[in-house]
Amino acid sequence: MAEKITPRAEDYAQWYVDVVRAAHLADYSPVRGSMIIPPNGYALWENMRDALDAMFKATGHRNAYFPLFIPQSFLAREAEHVEGFAKECAVVTHHRLMVRDDGSLGVDPESELEEPLVVRPTSETIIWDTYSRWIQSWRDLPILINQWANVVRWEMRTRLFLRTAEFLWQEGHTAHATAEEAVEETRRMLDVYATFAEEWMAMPVIRGVKTPAERFAGAVDTYCIEALMQDGKALQAGTSHFLGQNFAKAFDCVFQNQNNEQEYVWATSWGVSTRLVGALVMTHGDDRGLVLPPRLAPTQVALVPIYRKDEEREAVLEAAGRIERDLAAAGLRVHLDAREQYRPGWKFNEYEVQGVPLRLALGPRDLADGVVELARRDTGEKERVGLDGLAETLRRRLDAVQQALYDRALAFRRANTHVVNDYGRFQEQIEAGGFVLMHWDGTAETEARVKEETKATVRCIPFPGQLEGTEEAGTDPVSGQPAERRVVYARAY
Amino acid sequence: MAEKITPRAEDYAQWYVDVVRAAHLADYSPVRGSMIIPPNGYALWENMRDALDAMFKATGHRNAYFPLFIPQSFLAREAEHVEGFAKECAVVTHHRLMVRDDGSLGVDPESELEEPLVVRPTSETIIWDTYSRWIQSWRDLPILINQWANVVRWEMRTRLFLRTAEFLWQEGHTAHATAEEAVEETRRMLDVYATFAEEWMAMPVIRGVKTPAERFAGAVDTYCIEALMQDGKALQAGTSHFLGQNFAKAFDCVFQNQNNEQEYVWATSWGVSTRLVGALVMTHGDDRGLVLPPRLAPTQVALVPIYRKDEEREAVLEAAGRIERDLAAAGLRVHLDAREQYRPGWKFNEYEVQGVPLRLALGPRDLADGVVELARRDTGEKERVGLDGLAETLRRRLDAVQQALYDRALAFRRANTHVVNDYGRFQEQIEAGGFVLMHWDGTAETEARVKEETKATVRCIPFPGQLEGTEEAGTDPVSGQPAERRVVYARAY
Repeated sequence: MAEKITPRAEDYAQWYVDVVRAAHLADYSPVRGSMIIPPNGYALWENMRDALDAMFKATGHRNAYFPLFIPQSFLAREAEHVEGFAKECAVVTHHRLMVRDDGSLGVDPESELEEPLVVRPTSETIIWDTYSRWIQSWRDLPILINQWANVVRWEMRTRLFLRTAEFLWQEGHTAHATAEEAVEETRRMLDVYATFAEEWMAMPVIRGVKTPAERFAGAVDTYCIEALMQDGKALQAGTSHFLGQNFAKAFDCVFQNQNNEQEYVWATSWGVSTRLVGALVMTHGDDRGLVLPPRLAPTQVALVPIYRKDEEREAVLEAAGRIERDLAAAGLRVHLDAREQYRPGWKFNEYEVQGVPLRLALGPRDLADGVVELARRDTGEKERVGLDGLAETLRRRLDAVQQALYDRALAFRRANTHVVNDYGRFQEQIEAGGFVLMHWDGTAETEARVKEETKATVRCIPFPGQLEGTEEAGTDPVSGQPAERRVVYARAY
Repeated sequence: MAEKITPRAEDYAQWYVDVVRAAHLADYSPVRGSMIIPPNGYALWENMRDALDAMFKATGHRNAYFPLFIPQSFLAREAEHVEGFAKECAVVTHHRLMVRDDGSLGVDPESELEEPLVVRPTSETIIWDTYSRWIQSWRDLPILINQWANVVRWEMRTRLFLRTAEFLWQEGHTAHATAEEAVEETRRMLDVYATFAEEWMAMPVIRGVKTPAERFAGAVDTYCIEALMQDGKALQAGTSHFLGQNFAKAFDCVFQNQNNEQEYVWATSWGVSTRLVGALVMTHGDDRGLVLPPRLAPTQVALVPIYRKDEEREAVLEAAGRIERDLAAAGLRVHLDAREQYRPGWKFNEYEVQGVPLRLALGPRDLADGVVELARRDTGEKERVGLDGLAETLRRRLDAVQQALYDRALAFRRANTHVVNDYGRFQEQIEAGGFVLMHWDGTAETEARVKEETKATVRCIPFPGQLEGTEEAGTDPVSGQPAERRVVYARAY
């Protein structure tokens, strides 16, 4: 505790690491690129997972589990897929260690596998191999499956939550009889992600399509939600892919349609990961630490008892215990911190750093007055509220905090979204940060040039109605060529 | 569907595989020893996980996540631990694939890791390395953490759920200031497992201690719960280990106690795995398929509408929809199967094979009479029950099924637990199956001889009061030496 948090204005990247560590969301590990998620961070991820899982099930999906290991040859079956993942794979080559002649431990050379196994970077290949056995007829379709799992991508530069070699995620993999149905599913799941981001994380997102250069390896189309972080960089928060028949062809997955013809199955996949924890930190955190949206906060209300004398102690703790039970019974996630080895001020600081939305302090005078002191983490505001009807008061405040966080983030995004028509102005704005809307001629050449010269990428081509200023035709200022619309450029995590 | 299920009496091992596959609990994968868990199997595991998770949290534990990969050198730090696990480890040696000159895909030799990484067979080493950084003072203790994760042990002979290279499990890892507190925790978590096995799985278990030969690699003491399967073989259903200071010493994990002295931390670990799904199948299944205890069944009540004519169809489906909504609102896990491409008889068979505890059939005549046909999976009994108060009727029947399954399994275990005082009689009984209680002189020599000659092992030394016939002193008939008590021998999975 009491770790120093670097101010955002001084060093944003260091601020992020300081908050993540001070709030005990993640810790470094001795394994290169792999992080530890301590209880605070994992409880937050559990709440995210449970909310998403309920939404997946409400849209007809069921969970399943597929192997961690993928035969190397499977990865090679889909050309773009292997291109996208082969260079960042953890490869299992042996199945035994041995004590060597010098007494040290080493790999037993005699345990070499006939075919190396890749630790899954994503599961399309192993799952489509399975589906090719599960699917025979249109009656077997659709298959709507999700998997919660760990995956590994050997990244060279890693950052807690944002980019780690191993991460936790969910991956949906669905199989359909028609392209239309698969496209509809792709869009449905993107909407689930957007709803989750906005209503649970209080993080506004833009929904759109990726350019071919930014597509998932093996997809026909990648849809995405993009959020803007407080340092003006974009973060891709979730993707949903229409895979066409690419994986069905690679794994020979055909079905007999209602006209008794053999057809390749249509596919989608979609995923979000523990990266969302990083997005949450960077959307709402401030110089004092983490700020959690109430709907996801593992602890929504922290209750700190305050007393000096022994006779005060007993009365305050007794009342605090009663308040905790009442609030818990009303469905609030409340924590009474009765630890004696820490002072109230130390606890206040701890809940502030950890982003607990509301903090209550109860002393002998409050008790005599039938009130409690309530402090809001997002605004720092304090008020004394009555013990009568406390649960209802807190529920209203939690709703208010949830809404305020979203409003603040949306206002920030609006203030940092810029329409530009000039490449010089674009370069300045990219340097300053934010979403920059500029006409794009639709060519990979222009996209590559902009990336090369400014480190900005096309984050997405927003869906119709998503973002003002993107749908009018014009001229791409980079190439001078006609452009159907503006797209969202930004530097990104 | 309609896969043939081999009768138990004919070939028990084949019966098990047939049930697991026909009920869609697991499927083989192309990856050696790794299985696929399809939605039916995973939903069952989810219910088991959720019930256990709530019990862990109620006893003060929090979840966390530690890396999948463990540096090879970590494994070597605890002597018995490396001995126990080094020979069955998946080893990651490279981090990149490449396209070779002949166009094929292979491991890039230039991506060899400086130190090989082991895919975790269990996480003691990586966790105690972490705890050594997290723990400084007695104020940091206890640490009560659980992890839900996949682990890998390279097994040569694998069986669906019972023994697979990769499996899903939970592993609790706790750190304490005193030996007493750690022993208490070890026992507390074994009791959690026993409660789960008996009250949720309806599977009676014996609680006891393992002999030194059967201990977890690195433990001072291993407690276990042992169940008896229908073929007379034992199955270890959960273990809880008192690790003493072994891992604290290996990873130099010390704390300052209240007298300002440095002391090594005391440890426990405890785990159950997807193996429990196999135990569930073998405890309750019959020749018609799976039989699920209601508290864990993903679907508790299947509702099959029956009609011939179109006007019947509408009325029956409308009423069935209403029944489904009412039962769901009452908190029952109900599924209305309105699929038109399958006949009622086919559906009846499906729910029977899948072990759904109660099945309702609703036809036009039932509807006219205000009743529905209710069939119990465990007994096959059918009755017509009124639509009025249906939820309450079903809840009582579900409770009755849960209790009946437990009673039946307990009666089976009692009928198959034998006290013997003679080694010849012991050998006959081991051949016939069941738990065999015999005096043991406490030596590894006797234990090894019995194992060699009969393939039976000491399953456990029951805790006091656990099992009649075990606590009287006598003579070990194998060695002729005095024995303090009888122990539980059996052949085991």
